[in-house]
Amino acid sequence: MKNKMISVLLFAALSLSFAQTEAKSDNFSQVQLKQIEQLKQQALKSDLAWNLVESLTTEVGPRMPGTVGDKAGVEWAVKKFNALGFDKVWTEPVTFPKWIRNFESAAIISPSPQKLHITALGNSISTPKNGVQAQVIEFETLAELENASQRAVKGKIVFINYRMNRDRDGNGYGPAVQARNRGAVVAAQKGAVGYVMRSVSTAHHRFAHTGGSHYKEGVTKIVSSAISNADADQLHRLIALGKPVTINVNVQTKSMGEGTSYNVIGEFTGSEFPEEYVLIGGHLDSWDLGTGALDDGAGVAITMAAAKLAAKTKPKRSIRVVLFAAEEFGLWGAKAYVKKHEKELSNIVAAAESDFGADVIWGMESNVHASVLPVVRDIATMMKSLDVEHIGSNSAGGGPDLIPFRPFKIPVFKLAQDGTDYFNLHHTADDTLDKIDPKKLRQNVATYAVFSYMAANAKTRLVGKNN
Amino acid sequence: MKNKMISVLLFAALSLSFAQTEAKSDNFSQVQLKQIEQLKQQALKSDLAWNLVESLTTEVGPRMPGTVGDKAGVEWAVKKFNALGFDKVWTEPVTFPKWIRNFESAAIISPSPQKLHITALGNSISTPKNGVQAQVIEFETLAELENASQRAVKGKIVFINYRMNRDRDGNGYGPAVQARNRGAVVAAQKGAVGYVMRSVSTAHHRFAHTGGSHYKEGVTKIVSSAISNADADQLHRLIALGKPVTINVNVQTKSMGEGTSYNVIGEFTGSEFPEEYVLIGGHLDSWDLGTGALDDGAGVAITMAAAKLAAKTKPKRSIRVVLFAAEEFGLWGAKAYVKKHEKELSNIVAAAESDFGADVIWGMESNVHASVLPVVRDIATMMKSLDVEHIGSNSAGGGPDLIPFRPFKIPVFKLAQDGTDYFNLHHTADDTLDKIDPKKLRQNVATYAVFSYMAANAKTRLVGKNN
Repeated sequence: MKNKMISVLLFAALSLSFAQTEAKSDNFSQVQLKQIEQLKQQALKSDLAWNLVESLTTEVGPRMPGTVGDKAGVEWAVKKFNALGFDKVWTEPVTFPKWIRNFESAAIISPSPQKLHITALGNSISTPKNGVQAQVIEFETLAELENASQRAVKGKIVFINYRMNRDRDGNGYGPAVQARNRGAVVAAQKGAVGYVMRSVSTAHHRFAHTGGSHYKEGVTKIVSSAISNADADQLHRLIALGKPVTINVNVQTKSMGEGTSYNVIGEFTGSEFPEEYVLIGGHLDSWDLGTGALDDGAGVAITMAAAKLAAKTKPKRSIRVVLFAAEEFGLWGAKAYVKKHEKELSNIVAAAESDFGADVIWGMESNVHASVLPVVRDIATMMKSLDVEHIGSNSAGGGPDLIPFRPFKIPVFKLAQDGTDYFNLHHTADDTLDKIDPKKLRQNVATYAVFSYMAANAKTRLVGKNN
Repeated sequence: MKNKMISVLLFAALSLSFAQTEAKSDNFSQVQLKQIEQLKQQALKSDLAWNLVESLTTEVGPRMPGTVGDKAGVEWAVKKFNALGFDKVWTEPVTFPKWIRNFESAAIISPSPQKLHITALGNSISTPKNGVQAQVIEFETLAELENASQRAVKGKIVFINYRMNRDRDGNGYGPAVQARNRGAVVAAQKGAVGYVMRSVSTAHHRFAHTGGSHYKEGVTKIVSSAISNADADQLHRLIALGKPVTINVNVQTKSMGEGTSYNVIGEFTGSEFPEEYVLIGGHLDSWDLGTGALDDGAGVAITMAAAKLAAKTKPKRSIRVVLFAAEEFGLWGAKAYVKKHEKELSNIVAAAESDFGADVIWGMESNVHASVLPVVRDIATMMKSLDVEHIGSNSAGGGPDLIPFRPFKIPVFKLAQDGTDYFNLHHTADDTLDKIDPKKLRQNVATYAVFSYMAANAKTRLVGKNN
């Protein structure tokens, strides 16, 4: 049904194109507006992004920072940028604390022995060789754990069963991630011997969701893990029966010291203002469980393809695609980029990261100086036929890798994807290529291509709130 | 959407009940027809089946024949039958070749190292401790493998990538299962060192599907396994790139000799013809990966609940619920039942097994002597308001456990569930309670209750084609 609707909308987009080239703009010529319409049509027919994400997830596969797959991903990206004819292709080193997962398993020991589908959260320590085994104590929220007595928690495995909300904009993620970030610390402070949480996930399939977690100096480190939502329900039901429930959690991981990877960057150089550039991109690394198709192979492919298409008509400003390294371990690539380029971040005329899956883009939000809002409105007008709304609040945060850019108040855009189903798959073994709809991917490419072209060619240069 | 439709239909069922009690029948009195309508209403409001399947899958969990879980399942069933007030409750021993799974993992070794989600097929031998490692050769079908040359296959791991068809009646299963039953034998005959198949599954989630497989005397035994469909696609894409693809398959299993379990039987005794009985049931065992919710906790719960409700008005004939043992290993419980009861199978006035998940029943098909078709038509009439069609062909096969009954041509019924989504979950770790819709479960109970009541009370006794 959704697919059908998209087809209809995309068809409508093509049909409307003539009417829209008649639109007036102070920032774009009629010739340019026509080029934008052609660009949309090309993008909506192009398989380039699909081919890229298929190649990345198949020929490289999982790309956890510092692993063989990550290295292969960097080589892949350099090769693809070159093959696509980017004018400049280079890498910039990124360091991060390397961590790997070797083994994980869990089971209910009593009252009814059965396997649990578990995964270690990123950065978790190992359990003893035979696991940690103890009675489970359940809390609905992190706050409930925070209010619990030491006496109740001591010697037990803490289980937080917080249910994440499904939401188009992913607003359920933030509250759910609290328990992932801090659960093991709070549990350990109360004397727990292990920490297990319900997955930060909206799916009922039996995949556990991984993701970053943290320890605190001075607090005993205990194993930090997540079980699938189906398993969390099972544990909840058993505990509700009133008898003590004992589980065993066995996680074997390793912290490997400092790892190195690379931001991979490809640029089409602008014809008039080569220093000024549009920054688009995604992150090249992924978690190890899946093949990083939605997170973030799609973003890599969408932005590489969009740049390639948008650059065909030699834009005035450069279009730079940055594939960030080690995002999953804590935005290490983005932090390195900002550090290295700190003095020239003002050259960025617009930045947008694609890192929210591969569903359609439904909205566009800017975060720019008020003086350049007419350009934003022009961009919005040209995106209408792609079924992209203008979100008027002008306070976009951009993708995760744009967080380290925030202090510099550069012009940021959010091309908002529909994230309703994103957290069914995100950070699980189930994040694989087959979950991407090629048609929706094309709509993403078209939107990013329009965005890149227009930001690179606008008569008035886009500027951020720093101005 | 589907759920909403069902609600509307169920509501219509209730509203229509008065009109239908006016129906005429030679086999049922007006009082009985009213009782049937009341029975439907009770069943559509009853949580009994849900409570049973929740208890079985939670408090017992996986029930692979011969395991601790299987034993707990038998105890659970005896206890529940007694608690529900069945007049007679007993067990009958069943033996079977016991097999267990200890460990399984697989990975692509080259060209791009990554994990594969694999499971051993039932009865598979173990690989050497470090797995079997070899180049993969792919076939689309078992027939294609059969036509392959020894030279092409020798020393390789055979991969059959047959894609199962999705179908409401599960008609895609039979053709797909060929490769599960015989793939390892045919591969070994051509000199293969291992066998991996695409899962017999219609889902794209990363769960491998297990199920019975067989060896042949005189043919070398090689490991017999299945990978998830997402992994099968991945392997297919890599192989299609033209470079040799090497994988490692590590499966550790154990054949344990003869195991023992029990058919568990509960009966409500008929008031006029206690020897004659309606046989309904499911199988109590399950595979080890999930908790056997759809396969076949649902069937167990539906038929236990239906018998309990149908027996409230003291039917003329007995209603017997048979929970078969060791179905998954080859219908061992059903074979044992037929053997033990061979001389009195003619006492069965109607038999139906629920073993196709928990989606709604859309059709009812009989397999009875032509002389008793008027009774079948009466049953069909009373099922109409439950949105159950009469399938007129009168050649129902019944569920898997009724296969050993076939030579005896007893009266058999198929209460056909919608199986469109069944093979998304069947025989995988994802077969868990949360996949059951309580509303749909109630429609199943209502249909089985109507069936049991009417077969037990019909003026004309139902007889099979043996008469």
